[in-house]
Amino acid sequence: MGLIDYKLELESAAKSMILVHNHNTLIKMIVRNIVNKVRLHHAGILLYDKERNSYILTISRGQRGLKIPAGFARVESEKGLIKFFRNRDNYEGLKDTILTNERINVFLKKSFVSRHKHLKNTIIEARHQMLGFGAVVALPIFFQQDLLGVMLLGKKRSGKRFLQDELNFFVALSNNVSMAIKNAELFENLQFEVDRNHRLFIHTAIAMTAAIDAKDHYTHGHTQRVTEYSLAIAKKLIAKRKISSADNFVENLRIAGLLHDIGKIGVPESILGKKGKLDAEELDKIKQHAIIGVTILQPIKELGEPILGVKYHHENFDGTGYPEGKRGSDIPLPARIIRIADAYDAMTSDRPYRLSLSKYEAIEELKKFSGIQFDPVIVEATIDLYKEGSL
Amino acid sequence: MGLIDYKLELESAAKSMILVHNHNTLIKMIVRNIVNKVRLHHAGILLYDKERNSYILTISRGQRGLKIPAGFARVESEKGLIKFFRNRDNYEGLKDTILTNERINVFLKKSFVSRHKHLKNTIIEARHQMLGFGAVVALPIFFQQDLLGVMLLGKKRSGKRFLQDELNFFVALSNNVSMAIKNAELFENLQFEVDRNHRLFIHTAIAMTAAIDAKDHYTHGHTQRVTEYSLAIAKKLIAKRKISSADNFVENLRIAGLLHDIGKIGVPESILGKKGKLDAEELDKIKQHAIIGVTILQPIKELGEPILGVKYHHENFDGTGYPEGKRGSDIPLPARIIRIADAYDAMTSDRPYRLSLSKYEAIEELKKFSGIQFDPVIVEATIDLYKEGSL
Repeated sequence: MGLIDYKLELESAAKSMILVHNHNTLIKMIVRNIVNKVRLHHAGILLYDKERNSYILTISRGQRGLKIPAGFARVESEKGLIKFFRNRDNYEGLKDTILTNERINVFLKKSFVSRHKHLKNTIIEARHQMLGFGAVVALPIFFQQDLLGVMLLGKKRSGKRFLQDELNFFVALSNNVSMAIKNAELFENLQFEVDRNHRLFIHTAIAMTAAIDAKDHYTHGHTQRVTEYSLAIAKKLIAKRKISSADNFVENLRIAGLLHDIGKIGVPESILGKKGKLDAEELDKIKQHAIIGVTILQPIKELGEPILGVKYHHENFDGTGYPEGKRGSDIPLPARIIRIADAYDAMTSDRPYRLSLSKYEAIEELKKFSGIQFDPVIVEATIDLYKEGSL
Repeated sequence: MGLIDYKLELESAAKSMILVHNHNTLIKMIVRNIVNKVRLHHAGILLYDKERNSYILTISRGQRGLKIPAGFARVESEKGLIKFFRNRDNYEGLKDTILTNERINVFLKKSFVSRHKHLKNTIIEARHQMLGFGAVVALPIFFQQDLLGVMLLGKKRSGKRFLQDELNFFVALSNNVSMAIKNAELFENLQFEVDRNHRLFIHTAIAMTAAIDAKDHYTHGHTQRVTEYSLAIAKKLIAKRKISSADNFVENLRIAGLLHDIGKIGVPESILGKKGKLDAEELDKIKQHAIIGVTILQPIKELGEPILGVKYHHENFDGTGYPEGKRGSDIPLPARIIRIADAYDAMTSDRPYRLSLSKYEAIEELKKFSGIQFDPVIVEATIDLYKEGSL
C-alpha cells in the first residue's frame, strides 16, 4: 500500500478517534490502526499515567511474534525517551526532532552531543529503551507543553526503511492522536464528576435515611435492606424477561428504595418507637408517612420517577392499600416491588410486639397474600431468589 | 492568501476546535475562522436545535455590511436547504453534491429535476434561502446520517469565484467541523449530567433538612436562611479580599450550611420542641447535635470538607464553644461563618421563650460578642451586608 493511501486512511481513522472517549480503547485503536495500515511488525504507545508518575506501555500484538504483556513495561519520567523529548528543544540541533535508529547514531557522533554528557547519556538510554521495545522510530505526543506519551514503531513487514515523507506524516498524525487523547482525558474527568456527584447523592440519601431508621429502634438497617431486596427482585424480573430493563429503571428503583420511608421523619417519635400495640389514630399517623414522603420530595425537580415508588409503596395488589387504594398494574411497578421487599424485611426482622419470622415462613406469607397484597409475578421472582439462596 | 496557505491554517484551526466544548463558542470560532482565512464578506452556520426542531443561524458580522442579528433567522426542518441535503442522496445526479449559485441554475435545467416537482421546489426554496442569507455556497455538516447543520459562505472579498479545489477542501473541512460539533454536544450533555446530579444532591439535602427543621416547630426555614446568610457573608469576605475564593470553597460552604443541623435528627423531639427553658441535661443533648451530625455524615466519602463546617459550627472564637473548645483560626473558616449566620438567624427568629430581636439589635449583639463568640473579621463583613440592606 502506497504512502498516500495509508495517509488518507490513517487520517480518517484519527478523526473518528475523537469520539472514542475511553482512554484504553482509544490507545488500542490507534496502535492497531498504525500497525495494520502502515504494515508494521508491531507498534506501541507509552502513555503518561498521573497516579504512577510514569509512562505505561500499550502495545499491539503485531503480525509476527513480539508481544510484551500490556501494562508490563513502564518508563520513568526522568529517563531515556521521556527525558529526551522533554528537553530536546533546549538544543538547537535537536529541535522538533524525532528518534530513529539511524538518527541516534548520527546524533551520538555530533560534537555538541559529546559536549553535553547528560544529553549523551539520555540518548544512549533512549536507544536502549527502543531496543527493548523493538522500536525503530519514536515520536513524542505533545499537547501544548505536556508530553502525553511516545509512539513507538516497529519495523515494516516489507523490510524497507521509513521514508522522510512518512516520518513527517507521522509527526502530523501525532497531533491528531494528542488531541484525541486529551479529549478522552477531559471526557473521563467529566464522567468521573458525574459519578462522584451521583454517589454523593446516593450516599447522602443512605446516611440520612439510616439516621431516620435509627429513630425507630426496631428498623435498624431497614432502608438499606429494602433497597437491596428491591434491586435483587428487579434484576430477577429482568432476567426472567418479565419486565424490560429500560433507561434508568434500576437506578430509579434504588433511589425510590432509599427514600421510601423518608416520610417517617414527619411521624412523631412516640408513635414510631411505641412498644405496645398501636391504636387506630396512631396507625393513621403511621400511614401518613407515604404522603409526607411525597411532600418532602416533591420540591426536588430532578427526582421525578422515584417519587411514585415512595408514594405508592403501601398499595395492595387488590386495591385495599393506601394512600389511594390503587390496584394491580395501576400501582407503579417500583412501588409494587418495594411493597414486597418492605414486607419481607418487616417479617424477617424483630418488631416490638413479636419476634421475626424465618425466611421460609416469610416466603410462605408472601405466597399466601400473592394476588391480595402482592403482585403474583413479583412474588414468583422473590421465591426464585429465596430458592437460590440470594435472599 | 493562496489556497494552500489558508488550507493549512484552517485545518489546524479545525483541529484545535476539538477542545472547545461550548457549542456557541465553537460555532462562532468556526465562522470567524472561515471568514478571516478565506477572506469572505461573511459566513454563517445553520445549526440544528433539538428543542425547536429547526435550524438556527449563527453568523459572522463579516467585513462589510451584511449583518443578520444572531438567533434571528431559523430554518424549518422540512424546507429548502435542509430538505435538499437530507434527501439529495436519493437522486443519482445529486449524490454528495453541495449547493452553489451556479450549480443550482444547472440543476434546475436538468430533466430529472424537472420531472420531480418536489425536488425542483426544494431547490428553488434553497436558492431563495441562500439569497436571504447572502450565501453563494451551502455545504451540509453531516455526522453519520444526521444533518447537524449547513455552512453558508458569502462572496469572497476579492470578488473572485470559488475554485472547484476550494469547494472540495470545504467539504473535507466540514467533516472536521462535524466532529467538533458532535464532540461539543457530547460534552455539554455530560456537563448537564454533572449539574443535574449535583442539583439532585443539593435539593435532596434541602428537602431533608427542611423536614428536620419542621420537627423543631420554631426553626421553620432555619437551615435555608443560615445557608443563604453564610454564602452572602463568604462572598462579602471574598470581595473584601479577606479570604481567597479557592476551589469549591463557596460550594463546600453551601453544603456545610445545608447540613449543619442534620444531627438534630438524633435529638429527641420532646427536647427540640420544648416550650419552657431547657435543663442542663436537655441542653447537653441539644449540644450533641454537632457530633451526631458528624456520625451521620462520616460514611459519605465524597463529602469531605463540609463535614468540618458541621462539626465545629458551635465553637466560639475565644475557645468556650463545643464540641472541642477550638479557638480562633483553629476553627475551620466555614464553621466560623456558619456560627455567625446561625446566631443571626436564631436572634432574628421567634423562639419558644422569647420574641425575635430586630435586625439592628441582632447586629448589635454580634458586635458585642465579636472576638468572644464570633470572629471579628466575619462580624465586620456581616455588618457590611446589614448596612447595604442585604441581610
